[in-house]
Formats: sequence, C-alpha cells, structure tokens
Amino acid sequence: MSNKDNNFVKDITNIEEDFAQWYTDIVLKADLADYTDTKGCIAIKPYGYEIWENIQKYADAKFKKIGVKNIYLPVLIPESLLNKEKDHIEGFAPEVAWVTIGGQEELEEKLCIRPTSETMFSTMFSKWVNSWRDLPIITNQWCNVLRWEKETRPFLRSREFLWQEGHTVHETEKEAQELTLKMLDTYKEVIEELLAIPVLQGRKTPKEQFSGAVATYTVETLMHDGRALQAGTSHYFGQNFTKPFDIKFQNREGKEEYAYQTSWGISTRLIGAVIMAHGDNRGLKLPPKVAPIQVVVVPIAQHKEGVEEKATEIYNKLNEKYRAHIDLRDNCSPGYKFNDWEMRGIPIRIEIGPRDIENGVAMLVRRDTLEKQEVKLDELEETVGKILDEIQTNMFNICKERLEKKTTTATNLDEFVKNINENQGYVKTMWCGNDECEDKIKELTGAHSRCIPFNQEHLGDTCVCCGKKAETMVVWGRQY
Amino acid sequence: MSNKDNNFVKDITNIEEDFAQWYTDIVLKADLADYTDTKGCIAIKPYGYEIWENIQKYADAKFKKIGVKNIYLPVLIPESLLNKEKDHIEGFAPEVAWVTIGGQEELEEKLCIRPTSETMFSTMFSKWVNSWRDLPIITNQWCNVLRWEKETRPFLRSREFLWQEGHTVHETEKEAQELTLKMLDTYKEVIEELLAIPVLQGRKTPKEQFSGAVATYTVETLMHDGRALQAGTSHYFGQNFTKPFDIKFQNREGKEEYAYQTSWGISTRLIGAVIMAHGDNRGLKLPPKVAPIQVVVVPIAQHKEGVEEKATEIYNKLNEKYRAHIDLRDNCSPGYKFNDWEMRGIPIRIEIGPRDIENGVAMLVRRDTLEKQEVKLDELEETVGKILDEIQTNMFNICKERLEKKTTTATNLDEFVKNINENQGYVKTMWCGNDECEDKIKELTGAHSRCIPFNQEHLGDTCVCCGKKAETMVVWGRQY
Repeated sequence: MSNKDNNFVKDITNIEEDFAQWYTDIVLKADLADYTDTKGCIAIKPYGYEIWENIQKYADAKFKKIGVKNIYLPVLIPESLLNKEKDHIEGFAPEVAWVTIGGQEELEEKLCIRPTSETMFSTMFSKWVNSWRDLPIITNQWCNVLRWEKETRPFLRSREFLWQEGHTVHETEKEAQELTLKMLDTYKEVIEELLAIPVLQGRKTPKEQFSGAVATYTVETLMHDGRALQAGTSHYFGQNFTKPFDIKFQNREGKEEYAYQTSWGISTRLIGAVIMAHGDNRGLKLPPKVAPIQVVVVPIAQHKEGVEEKATEIYNKLNEKYRAHIDLRDNCSPGYKFNDWEMRGIPIRIEIGPRDIENGVAMLVRRDTLEKQEVKLDELEETVGKILDEIQTNMFNICKERLEKKTTTATNLDEFVKNINENQGYVKTMWCGNDECEDKIKELTGAHSRCIPFNQEHLGDTCVCCGKKAETMVVWGRQY
Repeated sequence: MSNKDNNFVKDITNIEEDFAQWYTDIVLKADLADYTDTKGCIAIKPYGYEIWENIQKYADAKFKKIGVKNIYLPVLIPESLLNKEKDHIEGFAPEVAWVTIGGQEELEEKLCIRPTSETMFSTMFSKWVNSWRDLPIITNQWCNVLRWEKETRPFLRSREFLWQEGHTVHETEKEAQELTLKMLDTYKEVIEELLAIPVLQGRKTPKEQFSGAVATYTVETLMHDGRALQAGTSHYFGQNFTKPFDIKFQNREGKEEYAYQTSWGISTRLIGAVIMAHGDNRGLKLPPKVAPIQVVVVPIAQHKEGVEEKATEIYNKLNEKYRAHIDLRDNCSPGYKFNDWEMRGIPIRIEIGPRDIENGVAMLVRRDTLEKQEVKLDELEETVGKILDEIQTNMFNICKERLEKKTTTATNLDEFVKNINENQGYVKTMWCGNDECEDKIKELTGAHSRCIPFNQEHLGDTCVCCGKKAETMVVWGRQY
C-alpha cells in the first residue's frame, strides 16, 4: 500500500509543466469523465455529472424567478429549416451531423442533430405568436447538442455536450435587449457565486459574434494558465430570425409587426472552467457550493474499537446539514485516502482517530489552504459551515487576484506581444473597430478579442494595431 | 365573449364518442404539446414539460435514496457496438435513425441515435469493472431517445421521447434480480402516489419481453377507455450483455466471472397516461401532486374596487404553500376562465368577488367532483391543503374502481372475445405458456398479454385458448 500511497499524486502531471496533460489527468483520475467508443464524445461519470446537476439546480432556480419556462423541442432539425437564416447556416453548416437514414429507409430530406435550436424555436414561435398578448415568450430547454468539432477535449470542446438554450420573443427591441442583458447578469451570478470564478462582461466584436445575431454578449473567465475561457453567451437577434421565420404579431395599435428575439446558453463547459480555474498539483479543488461532497470523514485506525462508530456518528450529523461522505474502505491506508480526497477536490476533510476521540476532538483539513486545525467535536458542525463559507470566498479571491495580476495594458503591438508572451492573461487595448486589425492581432499573438467590456477605460486615443483613431477599449486573450 | 364562452368546452370532442380525437384535442388545447416540422416529433410546451419536471423530481429523489448515480453517455452509438448482442440488434435495427454525414464528410462507420443505451453502457462498464470491489454500479441517465415509429401519437408514441434509463451491474444473479424488482416497485410508487393511477405488476411473457433480456417486468395501467398502457419496465439481463461486451470481474475468490446486469425506464409516455387515465369531457384532470398549478384564483368583477387586491392577497398566501396561480386577464370573462382552468385540469379553483369579500369568504371548486363550497377566508389555506389531499386520493380511487369494473375472467375463447368487446379492460385467463396461443388470442381479440401478474390466481386448470394444461395466469388487454 505504501508504494501506491507515494505515487498517487505523482501520477498527475505537474500543473506548471504541462497544463493540458494535467487537465486530462484530473478529468480521468478524479473520475469526472471518460473517453467512449464514439469519437469526440465523452461519458460524464457520476462525480462530474453531480457538478452539472448542482449547476443546473442553481441556474434553473434563478431562471424560474425571472419567469423562464422550460420546454422541449426535437433534437432533429430538417435541412430546410436550418437553411432559412443565411448567416446562421453559414456558421453552422460545417459542423453539423446529418441523419440520412431512418427506419431502414433513405430520408427524402435529411435531418441535422441540433447544433443549437434557433431555427426550431423560431418555427414554433411563428405558430405561437399572433398578438401582443402572446408576448413575451421566455422559454428554455436543458438538452444535448452536437457540433462536429475536429479537435476535442473533455468538457471544453466535445462533439456532444449538455447545455441550456434559452430562447425568447418580445414585443419591443428594448424589452428584448434588456432580457439579453438580464440573462448575462444571471450567468455572472451563477459563475461567480456558485463556481467562485470572477467574470468579465462585455460585448463580442462583430467577428466573434454568433452567426445570425445582432449582438453577442459574453461572460469571460481566466484559467490557471492565464488562458481565457468563454463561459456563457447571450445573443440579441433583433428581427434577424423573426423575418425569415415570419414571427409576426398584431401590436397594441392593431398593426402587424415582426417580433424581437434573444437566445442565451451555458454548458457542461463550465465543469472544465471549474477544473482549470481552481485546480492545483494535488488535483481538483471544488468550490463548496458546487462540490458533490463538501466534507469527507476519514477514520484513522479504523479497526480499533469505537473508531468506526464515532466516525459514522460524526458523518451522520454532518450529513444532515452538508453533502457529506464517510470513507470506510478497508483496502487502503488513511494516507492514500487523504491523497485521494484531495485529488477529488473535497473542500473539507475530517480525520478522527482513537486519540482524538479520547480528547473529544477531530482534525479538520481545508483543501484550499491545506491548513489543519483541531476542532472540538461539539463545535464541529458549526465550524464546518463557517469554513465552507470561508473556502468559497477564498477561492473566489484567489481567482480574482490572479485575474488582476494577469491583466495588462498595451498601447502598441510590441507591448502586446511582450505582455501576452510573458504573462498570458488578458491584454487591454484601444481598438479602431476594424476587422483587419483584429485579424492581425490574432495572427501575431494568437489572442482573440474576448470582448468590448461594459466597463470601458480610456487607455489612449489610438488603436493598438494601426495607430488610427480608437473607437473602443477591447480585452484580448489566448483562449480555450 | 359570450359566444366564445359557450363554445369553449364544445371544441373538445366528446370522450365517449371518439377517445382518440378527445386525446389529441386535450394535448393541443390544454397547451401540453404541439406538432413540429420534424415528422413524428412533438414540442413539449411549458405546461406539459412542468408535469415531466414534477415526475423527474419525484422519481429522481427515490432513485437517489436507493443509491442510483446519474451519468451521461453519448447520444450516438457506433454501428459495431449496436451489433454486439444479437437479439438486441434484431429488435432495434428496424427503428433506428442513422447519422452518416458529420462535418460535411461521409462517415466511415455510421452512428445511430440511441433507441436505448444498453450497448453504450455495457461498453463503459467493461472499462469500469475489474474487481468485485467495483460492484455494484447503479447508474441512470435522464435523456432523449429516438425510435423511428411509423405511426406516432403525442407522448404515447413519439419518434423522439424523453426518459430515464437506469443501467446496473452486479456481482451476483440474486442481487441483480432484487434490484430489477426494487426499481419496478419504485415505478409502482411513482405512478400510484404521484400520478394517482393504480398499477398491475408482473412479468412479461417471452414474446413481449425486451430484446436481449432474460426477463422483463412491467407496471401496467388502464386508461379511461379500458385500453392498457405499459407505463414502465424493468429488465433482468443475466449475462446476456456482459458476455458479448466482456464485463468481467475478479470475484471474492479471486476468480474471473461475468457480471449480472439490469436496465429500467419510464418516459414522457407517463404524461399520456395521466391525460388518458383521469380526463373527462371538461378536459384534463391533474392529480394535485403532479399538477404544475394546484390552485388558481379567479377574481369576479375584477374591475370593482378592492377585488384584484384581495384576490392577489389570497394568491400570495396560497402560493407560499402550494403551486398557485392568479388569473388577472382583462380580456375574458370569469365564465371563460372557469372553463379554461377546468380544461387545463387545475385541481382547485378559488372564486372571489365583491360580495364574498364583504362576507369574508371565497368559493372553492373542486375539479374532480365539480363540487362548490364556501370557505371562510381565514380557513382557506388549511382547507385547500386538506382538499388537495382528498382529490389525490379520490382520483386514485376512481381509477381503481374502473380497473376493478373493467377486469374480467375468461375460461374459453368465446368468453374472452365477448368480455373484451363489451368491456375492453383486462381479461384474466389461464395460459399454457405457448407462443402459438398468445398469437392466436392477439389475432382473434386484438389483445396482447399484459403480464403474468405477481399476484397469481387459480382460475382453472386449462389454457383459455388450447384447453391444454395451464401453466400460469395471464392478464390480457388491448393496448396503446
């Protein structure tokens, strides 16, 4: 057993040496997901799926308060529907999977597996919307989608993934735009409050926006290695879909008008964000609010009289208030268990052995700081609650500090290249608004524009790239 | 408005005249679902989807108590995997949809959209199972599946539907068999407690069992028109999948052994069961526990001073304890609203007008009996709770009485034909165990064997069909 103990954490690639391999190691070894025989698609294992369930519960409760109604539309979309909005089909055609045979017969019209469902929702909305009294419609579906990615990575870019896609129709432009931003704020809350990852909010540049949108808004996050991850998006469509799909309504003045539309989504990609924002060389590190197990009880010298009983008693009490687990495995040492639960990112570990029982105490170990403290058994329940809160806050603050440390400003291209090569992270610049400058920056630095942040700063008067008059401030970063 | 009022319920086909059309009317007019441009696939609208969410919540909580872990596996299954178990592929090949193009290229191996996921789960289990210490694995996924049905009907038989599919692996035959039956009991609880529909439990005859199973167990329900609906199934596979998929483990004696497997599922079909078991000529009738809205408040003379305020006050109070709704529409009459909410099956309606407010009372109307009673406002909250319970029980009892009334016994074929033609319903008979008799009964009567009930009765010594020695008692019925 001792051999296994020693090698346990060593099995995980060093996070500073090879972040990509570290990530894969964590996904597999912490039992979050596994590869499957369907190329580019993963199996989400119980431990990973429970994280998703916690995200779903938290987000869905917020959606429902806003008045979102869940629905379910078909996974298969006829080709003719997908083709109705020109930009949309251009964007998605290269990455869809087509069903051509059903019930042993060649289909007359092929059906794609939804890569996203704007076309299907719009078709239904055109049936459901007649009068202003039918509006707004604020719907959402939790479902699977499929995009035929060439290069895949568990959670971050998988051919099939799980997500929610909200789709809404409104009477006015203003109401639709407000809803678009309200959902973006909801995403910020979910990601910051639940996942303890600070987000940057802003609008995507035209080049980076969703195929068919008038405007795409984004919540951007920064990972351990300084790369950016787009964590959620919210799109304002104006009448781009309502016109080709004929979503018309009689307005309050009795005139026919095309409605205004939005869509917005977050996905199982967020599990990847949690891994990459918080993990370290010991493995996964889960924010308490989203952790499937918040506190694990590990008995020491478990075979000795009274130990298992006392540990179970503690577990039962904790489990009433928190998501608790007790590790009674008899085929591995406490040391192995410590490593194992640290690797799985459990926020708090409680160790309890014969001497602790004698003294009426237990050892409490925090995953975030690895600090140990002795806690009186009759104060354990309260202390665990307090420290779970502390861990949640501390993990957010650590990410926030990194974000600040890794955010730099550049006023010319040399500075830009230097900053991003030294530091990765976000680079803030002024920008003239032209696609050509965006392309040039991408080519030169590998960084994409993350967004035009809502919090605009004045960093100068000229574009970082062409030196001409700047229109706006942009944040850039290399991305997942 | 008055015209619309009068015609409102008349728009629904009479339930005794054309049950099939009545069903379609309810699905569409109660806003449960709608047809889509994808042939054979429906859109589940908010009101229908909320019923599904309530079923999910109730079942999932029971699953989790049993130790079921949710996971998610790919929607696409490579042809080679599907082909591994001979009976399974024979059963499902005619009804699968095939993806042949992905990312604009013809695929080397075609992929089917899961009609069920035994093959995918088995492939993963073969990776995850090595030692008896890895067992049991008790997993489940909530997901969409697709079967290329020729004739479809909303909820009852849709090409795509939503379901949960549980898949488990065990060390011993005994443990696997016990789990199979435990899940069947869980289904009975969900359907009887939540949906207020009594079930008949038993084992399917070999002809009716799942492709690849050793034994299929079923929960059968009886609809308003006396036809049967299979509401859930639980399968024991023995080693039928573990052998071709090589799911081996080292047992406690250190020897390699093939594991034992089960699977079990319920689906959005249950929404169809709720409609058809409880509905009447006024429309849908929802059991309180599964109803998205349990109580609706309708103000009378809403424009008069104080009415809307009082109605809102009542609504707010009820909404703290129950799923409540207030109907403040200003473009339809109270009469229209009464019909509308009855048609949507809301268990309790509260009417409140100026005179009621003066007298400190409200009118409470039950959807199940249509009885009205005056309730003092300060007793309303308590009374609503009590009556919701009564409605739940009463609805179950009504179904139970119908079930008993529509269950008959036949000892020969003439009796069988007479009973089922007069009465529809379940026909109980003795059976010799031969497929030929089962086929003959189906041909002659249109009835399928529902199951070999766990509660066996001795109805005679000879088979209802051939007159030879009977082996077992079987329940038969025409089905959905």
